[in-house]
Amino acid sequence: MEKVLFNGKMMDREKASFSFDDRSMYFGDGVYEVIRVYSGHPYQLEMHLQRLQRSADELDIPYSIKEQQSLKERVIELIDTNGLTHDGYVYVQLSRGAAARDHLYERHIEPFIFAFTKEMEIPLDQQEQGIAVYLTEDIRWLRCDIKTVNLLGNVLAKRQAADHDCSEAIQHRGDTVTEGSSSNLFIVKDGQLMTPPADNLILNGITRQVVLDLAERQGLPVSITPFTTAELLEADEAFITSTINEITPIKEWRGTKHGRIKIGSVTKQLQTKLRADIERTRTGE
Amino acid sequence: MEKVLFNGKMMDREKASFSFDDRSMYFGDGVYEVIRVYSGHPYQLEMHLQRLQRSADELDIPYSIKEQQSLKERVIELIDTNGLTHDGYVYVQLSRGAAARDHLYERHIEPFIFAFTKEMEIPLDQQEQGIAVYLTEDIRWLRCDIKTVNLLGNVLAKRQAADHDCSEAIQHRGDTVTEGSSSNLFIVKDGQLMTPPADNLILNGITRQVVLDLAERQGLPVSITPFTTAELLEADEAFITSTINEITPIKEWRGTKHGRIKIGSVTKQLQTKLRADIERTRTGE
Repeated sequence: MEKVLFNGKMMDREKASFSFDDRSMYFGDGVYEVIRVYSGHPYQLEMHLQRLQRSADELDIPYSIKEQQSLKERVIELIDTNGLTHDGYVYVQLSRGAAARDHLYERHIEPFIFAFTKEMEIPLDQQEQGIAVYLTEDIRWLRCDIKTVNLLGNVLAKRQAADHDCSEAIQHRGDTVTEGSSSNLFIVKDGQLMTPPADNLILNGITRQVVLDLAERQGLPVSITPFTTAELLEADEAFITSTINEITPIKEWRGTKHGRIKIGSVTKQLQTKLRADIERTRTGE
Repeated sequence: MEKVLFNGKMMDREKASFSFDDRSMYFGDGVYEVIRVYSGHPYQLEMHLQRLQRSADELDIPYSIKEQQSLKERVIELIDTNGLTHDGYVYVQLSRGAAARDHLYERHIEPFIFAFTKEMEIPLDQQEQGIAVYLTEDIRWLRCDIKTVNLLGNVLAKRQAADHDCSEAIQHRGDTVTEGSSSNLFIVKDGQLMTPPADNLILNGITRQVVLDLAERQGLPVSITPFTTAELLEADEAFITSTINEITPIKEWRGTKHGRIKIGSVTKQLQTKLRADIERTRTGE
């Protein structure tokens, strides 16, 4: 029977339900992480839990390093308990907790953590053949650097993309590109890898950070700088990164701008390097 | 025993809990209304339910007029069942529903409605003596016209206000004033009532609409136009409106700008007119 982590305890999934007073429900007052699992091994678990800590800090949710260590153990336990020996992910959410509904939160509220696992294969077809993406205006708030469950802007963009037969939405504020609805964006121009800066307008993706690190180690020139939707059409290559889908090449732009783009050698090279890094996790290295 | 409305059924509050797959929990994917109750009578119930419908439509949540009629009856039934014969409110939330977590929602998901009641007196002291408000940058998304539960921007602003001994935060985008964290803003200058336009940057409050209507009926000159934080300091009077707190005069600005302001005759006149309108509800007229 599938188990979930529920406020520190393992519980049957069917028995798990949320308090009528949970602030995640009324205000989206919570933060989360999605951690990839390869052959039963969590990938970059430390980085994810550190980011969860940062998100909690930014929202003034009392959550300590000590609890983080315990959470690390429970995440691994949950993977084992559910027999997630293949590929999948762990979803972890930290809610500010339960209290009588009021915009004004009190600082003594006990935060609440829950987590579940899910099997999910690597989307190899997409990684090989690339995807079409839909360019659309970024209407989200100005703290996209915090991984909160206030995700309606992302949700609407994702649906808009699907309605135009695209796998992902790429958002832009005015002319300036920000990120996907659940991914970060990279382009390649004249051999240089470019991605928008991790300011308040985008989430600093774990896979984004890993890819930047891999690029640096290969001596690839990297430019972390804002770029425009017009520059997308002039790019030599483009790809998105995410925990679930790793590196996915873009083969077509739709929406605000239209165009096709080839899957290039820099993208393939980075895919190979990321694959190698992941394989080390898979074998438990 | 206190009852709640839970997906069309009355249920003991203690037994109510949310599905582990509810999208309100994972994405803040829901809309809501707070309806004032005076002596057991809901105030402006039709307007609230119409706005709930509009919010649902804007988020592509399938919710029909037929269900709205049924909801109206259930809200009144809930007030009666809970014996809310004094003053209070009804909270109603419409979630997109439960589905395996995915940014991309499917259109066949069954929406889920829940509601609860709460006793709450009219804050007469605040209405008479006025409040201090905290001016702060508006960091919310660009669809504040939809009453969603993606409320973190509002929540953070409210906490910031409280930390500066203010009862409410007044938000501004750059220099342009938008609204409170859970209220709309009005100012009076040279006998003219001014409030920002109900565009995508503010919620078109029910009390805002009632006050505009009352002002018009009194022949008060009204200007629905954007104004700046600098103009706040030059205003003769200022007040906020909300379903729960009705008309609350502002007596002090803190935060981005500082200053004191008097509670004036236009504010008091509108309070009197609103009180009269409410009293008609109270007596069941």
